[in-house]
Amino acid sequence: MQTPQKIAVVGSGLVGTLLAIYLKKLGHTVHVYDRSPDIRNIQFSGRSINLVMSNRGWKTLEDIGLDDEIRAIGIPVDKRGIHLQDGSYVTQNYGKEGEAIFSLSRGILNRKMIDLAEKEGVEFFFNQKIWDVTLNDATLHIGETERGEWTEIKFDKVFGADGAFSRIRHKMQRQSMFNYSQEFMKIGYKELHIPANPDGSHKIDANSLHIWPRGDFMLMGLSNLDGSFTCTLFMPFEGDNSFEKLKTEKDLVDFFAKFFPDTKAVIPNLVEDFFKNPTSYLVKMKCYPWTYDDKVALIGDAAHAIVPFYGQGMNAGFEDITILQDCIDKHGDNWRAIFLEYEQLRKPNADAIAELAERNFMEMSSKTADENFLLQKKIEKWFSDKHPEKWTPLYSLVTFSLTPYAEALALGEYQNKIMEEVLKMDNITAIWDSKKVEDKILELLQ
Amino acid sequence: MQTPQKIAVVGSGLVGTLLAIYLKKLGHTVHVYDRSPDIRNIQFSGRSINLVMSNRGWKTLEDIGLDDEIRAIGIPVDKRGIHLQDGSYVTQNYGKEGEAIFSLSRGILNRKMIDLAEKEGVEFFFNQKIWDVTLNDATLHIGETERGEWTEIKFDKVFGADGAFSRIRHKMQRQSMFNYSQEFMKIGYKELHIPANPDGSHKIDANSLHIWPRGDFMLMGLSNLDGSFTCTLFMPFEGDNSFEKLKTEKDLVDFFAKFFPDTKAVIPNLVEDFFKNPTSYLVKMKCYPWTYDDKVALIGDAAHAIVPFYGQGMNAGFEDITILQDCIDKHGDNWRAIFLEYEQLRKPNADAIAELAERNFMEMSSKTADENFLLQKKIEKWFSDKHPEKWTPLYSLVTFSLTPYAEALALGEYQNKIMEEVLKMDNITAIWDSKKVEDKILELLQ
Repeated sequence: MQTPQKIAVVGSGLVGTLLAIYLKKLGHTVHVYDRSPDIRNIQFSGRSINLVMSNRGWKTLEDIGLDDEIRAIGIPVDKRGIHLQDGSYVTQNYGKEGEAIFSLSRGILNRKMIDLAEKEGVEFFFNQKIWDVTLNDATLHIGETERGEWTEIKFDKVFGADGAFSRIRHKMQRQSMFNYSQEFMKIGYKELHIPANPDGSHKIDANSLHIWPRGDFMLMGLSNLDGSFTCTLFMPFEGDNSFEKLKTEKDLVDFFAKFFPDTKAVIPNLVEDFFKNPTSYLVKMKCYPWTYDDKVALIGDAAHAIVPFYGQGMNAGFEDITILQDCIDKHGDNWRAIFLEYEQLRKPNADAIAELAERNFMEMSSKTADENFLLQKKIEKWFSDKHPEKWTPLYSLVTFSLTPYAEALALGEYQNKIMEEVLKMDNITAIWDSKKVEDKILELLQ
Repeated sequence: MQTPQKIAVVGSGLVGTLLAIYLKKLGHTVHVYDRSPDIRNIQFSGRSINLVMSNRGWKTLEDIGLDDEIRAIGIPVDKRGIHLQDGSYVTQNYGKEGEAIFSLSRGILNRKMIDLAEKEGVEFFFNQKIWDVTLNDATLHIGETERGEWTEIKFDKVFGADGAFSRIRHKMQRQSMFNYSQEFMKIGYKELHIPANPDGSHKIDANSLHIWPRGDFMLMGLSNLDGSFTCTLFMPFEGDNSFEKLKTEKDLVDFFAKFFPDTKAVIPNLVEDFFKNPTSYLVKMKCYPWTYDDKVALIGDAAHAIVPFYGQGMNAGFEDITILQDCIDKHGDNWRAIFLEYEQLRKPNADAIAELAERNFMEMSSKTADENFLLQKKIEKWFSDKHPEKWTPLYSLVTFSLTPYAEALALGEYQNKIMEEVLKMDNITAIWDSKKVEDKILELLQ
């Protein structure tokens, strides 16, 4: 049991809200601040990518007792549905029988979690802009404008769960010995929409994550409960096939007819959505340390913003809460020890998922259209089914296990080296599921 | 000829002041702002590292016509003087006969340059704190405090020459697509002092850069005109031999007696200086882009802060001005083209010198005490004297040539690979200056 504290959580996104519920259940007073209006009262923005919940996220939700409520608003997705350029369609299971990730609409999930938090007794303060934080006494400075009047509110602890452009971190960054990097990707994204059929059913398979891999760019679709799909076009800002090249309706329609012909039937509002929705940036952000004394801690995207290509952004943020929980269980009222162990345990794993997520763009956009890659995945799955104790594919380690990300990254590199050798075997396309290949892998694993 | 502009340079350090002189000579109105008092009226800080001017810096000064005035306040340094742990002392020439870097005291140089700038008609505004800049109309926001009243002053162009913690860059960093990283080194530094003899002469050789290489840490000394030396102790903050371990007078005196016994005779105020002078941080900073439209540009440490181990920080900053000059000569009044070409040309070279400078800590602190390394340098010098058209050692490329840093870095790596092979030759210590070694290098260079 901890001595009750007055805690501010800055940011009412997914991680901030779940953290608030957890801290409230521990007996603390929890106030959540957000610079934006209550998401329950506004239209969602047209710049979201659907979320996928996987084992790490579920684990945190289970521990806090919310998994059933969330599962009810998600759709299980157990495979990739790959729309190849030649018009063919192949699927690739994500894991074993029964293993699935869950597609969730960000808006619906976030609203649900704020409802649950309020029910728990968490207090929310929307439209409250934090401009500064005094780190050594956990005081927030709140006001309408950066140069206007501010109100000061002192807390015992402040959590910065305010995302990739965190204002709390911004203050920490002005300290000596604070390492920080932000890097914008050359790829941006645009939200598009596949509406439901008139009867509310999905136009394409709801239980697949649909990908149209085209090398440097790709289209992706994830199902929503209402029968629609949230689609995302990931593409370079500049270059041959890029956002800058799609200036007119004709550019756009020709481009989709050439590269995504099968979407014509399912994306009726292509032109309107494309020119209405913003082209959004992707940023990678790393920093360290994540905490200041026993007063302030960063969590989720505020501590480690990654690209969305492994579907792990939210899961990594939720897992931060699990690790924090372990540290609280261990250190009780010693918040200095809690914060120190939390950041030390978590940082290498945050760096690892950042790396994995970046590499996965290539996997999704190019490799899923590559025969060698599909063969490698097939062999890995076949071998793993035969020797589950000897081989868990990297995707499963990241998605369906709680293996620390850094370990998963190292294991994945080791497995890739082995598979490189296997793919060099004579006539591998024909003998991929033979005793010879099995023995070769077993030998390489020694 | 350019159309005269009203230009603000933020920062009255070395790069800012030299840039101001250059721009004034071009016919522009130039106002220099600095948040600090006029350095000519204050004691210098006790946290400086002496500067060394080398060819890149001289080139810029020559172009602007200031090299003679600056040469008069510097001391040529043509070799390393290496104080080994066993009490022996060896020297190593930096380049060929007649090649030298120049030791300059930062305070004296900066004061001199401000004098020269004022003589040229540059106007200085000290104690003026810039808190914000409006990028799209080059407006500075100046005031006593961040939250107090501000005055707005609009310019045609703003140059941010305000160092590693640049306020101008700080504003650019809040833009989308601005990449940024800051990383603090685990090594800090402390200024120490070797006073002059009573007759004003130097206690140790003035024309050597003195190093006491001790592996993870080192002491360094550079001569001043008044007979003194500015010394710098570079050492980890934490660990076995570190600043945190030197808490008491006894810790310090014992440490110096053990590792730097020959300094006892020449650093009389060790204890006083050590505990009075701050332990300073070293930060590496990278960012991109460096310019905003045709309005704002970063230069010097504000664009690329590097560690001091190659003696190139100021030289790289001055060379920025040379590159800017080339772009101005080429593009005239088209400032958008000037800024774009400046940042594109300069960024890869800034990244290269950052890399070279970081690697050079190892060279100074460890390798200068390593026989193999000294042998390698000896062979390189010998071969380079015989075949100057075929081999210029990396240090000379960086220090005594105007070869772009990125090319120097690549050439250095190529040369190192060759020297690795050469050092593997049987009995190399004995045959290092033989025909056999010469032929081997010539063969490897094919």
